[in-house]
Amino acid sequence: MKRIVVAIGGNALNKPNEKPTAEVMEKNLLSTTSYLADLIEEGYELVITHGNGPQVGNLLVQQDIAKEVFPPFPIDVNDAMTQGSIGYLISQTLNNELIKRDHRRDIACVLTQIVVDKNDQGFQKPSKPVGPFYDEDTAKELERTKGWTVREDAGRGFRRVVPSPIPLDVLEIEPIREMIEDGTIVVAAGGGGIPVVRDKSGTISGVEAVIDKDRASALLAKLIEADALVILTGVDHAYINFGKRDQQELKELTVEKGLELMEAGHFAKGSMLPKIESAIDFVSRTGKEAIITSLEKVDLALRGKSGTRIVP
Amino acid sequence: MKRIVVAIGGNALNKPNEKPTAEVMEKNLLSTTSYLADLIEEGYELVITHGNGPQVGNLLVQQDIAKEVFPPFPIDVNDAMTQGSIGYLISQTLNNELIKRDHRRDIACVLTQIVVDKNDQGFQKPSKPVGPFYDEDTAKELERTKGWTVREDAGRGFRRVVPSPIPLDVLEIEPIREMIEDGTIVVAAGGGGIPVVRDKSGTISGVEAVIDKDRASALLAKLIEADALVILTGVDHAYINFGKRDQQELKELTVEKGLELMEAGHFAKGSMLPKIESAIDFVSRTGKEAIITSLEKVDLALRGKSGTRIVP
Repeated sequence: MKRIVVAIGGNALNKPNEKPTAEVMEKNLLSTTSYLADLIEEGYELVITHGNGPQVGNLLVQQDIAKEVFPPFPIDVNDAMTQGSIGYLISQTLNNELIKRDHRRDIACVLTQIVVDKNDQGFQKPSKPVGPFYDEDTAKELERTKGWTVREDAGRGFRRVVPSPIPLDVLEIEPIREMIEDGTIVVAAGGGGIPVVRDKSGTISGVEAVIDKDRASALLAKLIEADALVILTGVDHAYINFGKRDQQELKELTVEKGLELMEAGHFAKGSMLPKIESAIDFVSRTGKEAIITSLEKVDLALRGKSGTRIVP
Repeated sequence: MKRIVVAIGGNALNKPNEKPTAEVMEKNLLSTTSYLADLIEEGYELVITHGNGPQVGNLLVQQDIAKEVFPPFPIDVNDAMTQGSIGYLISQTLNNELIKRDHRRDIACVLTQIVVDKNDQGFQKPSKPVGPFYDEDTAKELERTKGWTVREDAGRGFRRVVPSPIPLDVLEIEPIREMIEDGTIVVAAGGGGIPVVRDKSGTISGVEAVIDKDRASALLAKLIEADALVILTGVDHAYINFGKRDQQELKELTVEKGLELMEAGHFAKGSMLPKIESAIDFVSRTGKEAIITSLEKVDLALRGKSGTRIVP
């Protein structure tokens, strides 16, 4: 039985220009979980991770609107809330799909705290925009009063930027391992995990940061000794010269070749780049393989017939 | 080793008149988790459940304020979010308390869906007030447009009321059992669980209802074969003639005596009554015992030296 970590994007739940209701999220998840159910029926041991970009963004905007009545929560608590809402919807839709196929399995979503280093260089250079847009005056005020870093965002106003540190450890790794061993389909590390730091005495505390969900998935895959890391995205492959005339799909990519193409700037920051980086990270540390592909092609890709396969 | 389910109230996190910030919730949890850590050090296998009344109420109000921008979520999704936020804060504070004592243990919070019967009579008579207060016109409008049931709330305006159905089954019971067996301290059934119904084909869907957290805890305790159900509250005991001159603390209560006092109206609805009911439910189904007491007395109560003990 092959054990795989499948990372699905936050955009699989909320597409741009759609109302972010629970019904829409659920409807969008129906096709995702149908493909995942195929993999389960074929015998894969599945651990599902997911993004939360649009969802945590909506929470932050919502809390900003209501801030006179309730003080907004910090990002770690909001991450925990989206692990709740998204994890619930994934568990339920997948469960229903499996019930329909008469293939009953236990599914559990575990809240996941992921440890980062408080000296991570990401904390010196916050780079990940989150939450609402502000006018310049409000933005400067928030920098002063809350110690935020705020940056102008392409003509749309000012936005808070937070660190995106490297994930180092998963606090709930033992329970997650045990559940997988017991045959449970696990949903974990949602939104890249709840970011926490450990001080000298070992005490854990949440931090205002966002861990890249692909990096978190790579770490989780390594820790549970997955046979493959599967990163789902909107396209069937990674490409060189993406979007250009001479665009070319990548079928197989060695770690060495991948690093070379990364340096040559072939992969877009904030989009394909973190996926390639995370895939390379997992493959080079474990000697296993990673796959980058679309939901529609995931099954073929696992048989080596589609997607981009990253190998040692 | 004695296996116990300990139910803590949503008020243990947010006290009335305190700002409901994450910092306040965390600070309030410090003493709770310190008492829980004592029990863990003494060798109890702990499963922790919690309420979410104030927290889910705040979410509903927040979403109502921001409703022009984001459509509010239904209650099941909001319950999932509070399982996330509260579960995270409990796990982290308890983990830190155990680290301080050099008593490392795995702690995991599992999202928990709890099945209710869609023919439960609670659905005919919604009774549990949730969310914001409305003026009469808005309230009537919401009844018409959303199919809500709305009721006047003691001079403070109109409020939505939702059903409080009886919990029947815990979807994640197997993973929870396995984790307990493996020595993990489990946080589960937060806010009484995410309420779901099963249709004829077995398909699960969320419902707009609130399951009483003590009833959910009694069900969970039965399903994991707990040796005792411990319900924490603001007072050291259950009382007869509570608040009156001849108030008398109850030390030991048989199921039979408990039912008798319930019928005589000794326990306040929405307060001590669901605790006594849940305790009786657990004890009469399992032949084990239940304890109702305060956080400060929980350790003594488990040694039979305080609290109200409900016995067969």
